[in-house]
Amino acid sequence: MRRFSLTSVEDQIVALLTAWGMPSDPARTTARVMADTDACGIDSHGISMLMRYEELRTAGSLDLTAAPRIVSEAPAFAVLDAGHGLGHPAAIRAVDLAADKARSTGIALAAVRNSHHFGAAGVYARRAAEQGLIALLTSTTSISGVIPTGGALPVLGTNPLAFAAPVQDAPPFVLDMSTSIVAVNKVKAKWLAGQPIPEGWVVDGHSSPVTDAGEAFRMLMEDDTGGLAPLGGPGTDLGGHKGFGLSLMVQLLSTALVGAPSPGHGGRHHEISHVFIVIDPAVITGGRVDSAAEVAVQTARTRRSAQAASAGTGGGLGVRIPGEPEEATRAERTAHGLPLPESLVDLVTGMCERAGVGVLLRDVSA
Amino acid sequence: MRRFSLTSVEDQIVALLTAWGMPSDPARTTARVMADTDACGIDSHGISMLMRYEELRTAGSLDLTAAPRIVSEAPAFAVLDAGHGLGHPAAIRAVDLAADKARSTGIALAAVRNSHHFGAAGVYARRAAEQGLIALLTSTTSISGVIPTGGALPVLGTNPLAFAAPVQDAPPFVLDMSTSIVAVNKVKAKWLAGQPIPEGWVVDGHSSPVTDAGEAFRMLMEDDTGGLAPLGGPGTDLGGHKGFGLSLMVQLLSTALVGAPSPGHGGRHHEISHVFIVIDPAVITGGRVDSAAEVAVQTARTRRSAQAASAGTGGGLGVRIPGEPEEATRAERTAHGLPLPESLVDLVTGMCERAGVGVLLRDVSA
Repeated sequence: MRRFSLTSVEDQIVALLTAWGMPSDPARTTARVMADTDACGIDSHGISMLMRYEELRTAGSLDLTAAPRIVSEAPAFAVLDAGHGLGHPAAIRAVDLAADKARSTGIALAAVRNSHHFGAAGVYARRAAEQGLIALLTSTTSISGVIPTGGALPVLGTNPLAFAAPVQDAPPFVLDMSTSIVAVNKVKAKWLAGQPIPEGWVVDGHSSPVTDAGEAFRMLMEDDTGGLAPLGGPGTDLGGHKGFGLSLMVQLLSTALVGAPSPGHGGRHHEISHVFIVIDPAVITGGRVDSAAEVAVQTARTRRSAQAASAGTGGGLGVRIPGEPEEATRAERTAHGLPLPESLVDLVTGMCERAGVGVLLRDVSA
Repeated sequence: MRRFSLTSVEDQIVALLTAWGMPSDPARTTARVMADTDACGIDSHGISMLMRYEELRTAGSLDLTAAPRIVSEAPAFAVLDAGHGLGHPAAIRAVDLAADKARSTGIALAAVRNSHHFGAAGVYARRAAEQGLIALLTSTTSISGVIPTGGALPVLGTNPLAFAAPVQDAPPFVLDMSTSIVAVNKVKAKWLAGQPIPEGWVVDGHSSPVTDAGEAFRMLMEDDTGGLAPLGGPGTDLGGHKGFGLSLMVQLLSTALVGAPSPGHGGRHHEISHVFIVIDPAVITGGRVDSAAEVAVQTARTRRSAQAASAGTGGGLGVRIPGEPEEATRAERTAHGLPLPESLVDLVTGMCERAGVGVLLRDVSA
């Protein structure tokens, strides 16, 4: 697979977004987030999203000229309106605002309404952690594809949750997860690879397991019956009711403060909403506790779980602290460029032609 | 099974706690929380915990004379020290303090260090929700019984997470869950019932599944190899890495602000820590959004998932919104009394004899 410089990927995204009407500052902010997401190996949420944004813009659902504005504000919170624009610049504004406030108050919250897809939630949580802060964030999604425990219709989004904390002498801990058993893209990947999906990922409208990945993907995309199980699977035996509870928690926290609709509401705009909670450990501890050092002790102890530390213990495969795999990929891709399949390069080229901008992707494979 | 009046259960707990040296105010607070937990059907975390508290007191691990004190405080946060006392009065103080602060600032945090078992986390989250507030809380646990994804040794606690939000014209949404695939008590219950446990709950030190409930329970209680899987199961196929990430998130958030040790650290005191985050929707929305009404819309939509709403859909078994089953049990037990097995009544009677207090449990079965 050919590799392209991350700088050129960012510039390409800026060129397309500005051609589509986005002012240059938010376009640069958005492109940085998207290229960084690709750098971290979250290929489903970076440059490959551009085609979807083009579609949404053409359909009049996405307003790229919108600027996020503050609706209300106080020392410990802010409510923002993204004006049906892309989620990335609104999310950056919100997390930075919550971070600034937390540095004064210890804890702060920013809620965003009327937003759109914002890429990978972990990017915003990590941004706070890189400043020494702890962040927790939730978001709704546009598509309703997850079935509650005991239910039959998919009425919940994949409702992501992200949490990040600084770690002494290491990259931040970054948890970024959908509250469904898997993300929709994992089903798509199995289908493209010609493999079945494990029993428990997807059930049909009669609560029967679907293991054909193509049928499952079609059901998730087109059908209003069947859907993904929550984390823990369908039923309660393996804790599916907990995953369902988490999913609903994310949906309630994301919507209750701004009055946003449910995923899959079918309105013209997606009206996605996000909530960012940021904590400044230095303010709360008053310097008496070094939080990043405390976190490092906990992650080191967790990592030791893989060792064959006592008789009769076989040792594990290796514990990966959330955030570590992404950080390793980021280092590798920053050094060697972003691998892009030719099919995606062709799609980007097509978008450039339609928008009347040059193809800026720079091949660094040689 | 004989049933006993909830008032008499509360009075019995007060009598024992005060005989053990706890001042009357915190004893009443603790007894109310414990009796309410039993009322809600969470039998594992109510009066049945008294034997464990007696043991810990005798062992010098639990100081029932301790009074929680505020270590530091600001408009949006407080740090409390529970002084190695029981967690219940410290948790009530912390959630009430965070609630008071949130009513001014919109969001507030209270962190508690040097605490002990505090019963069921959901009780404190619900307490905030009953006042119109949204609450999120996390806690460490004393025992280390959960194996990280890719690991072999149990280095994580069952690390509970609770979230509650008010719902218009209904009891609050209350999610209260361990981040392990099941709580230790579920394994115990299967053992007592002579049933095997589902594959995926517990693995031994070689990552092989254990389905014999007795062997699994012994492993969880006595062994430092093997343990519970995180929510999502062992491995990553069904999302176990997400459950692991959630467990570590709870552990980091609970400890990072107060410098508490990991579960299973083996010190004299348990040094459990809790974090309470409370949000006042009325402050954040400025009255422009009725959060409880928004939540009611979301829960109503979620409930409709069980209906056979479209062709080809069989309909689900019924969606239970987190908090509803407990509320139903609470109403039933408030009316008809708390069922207690004779074995537990005998244990309580034994404690009363040792403490020199009367048996106050009042049989209302007749």
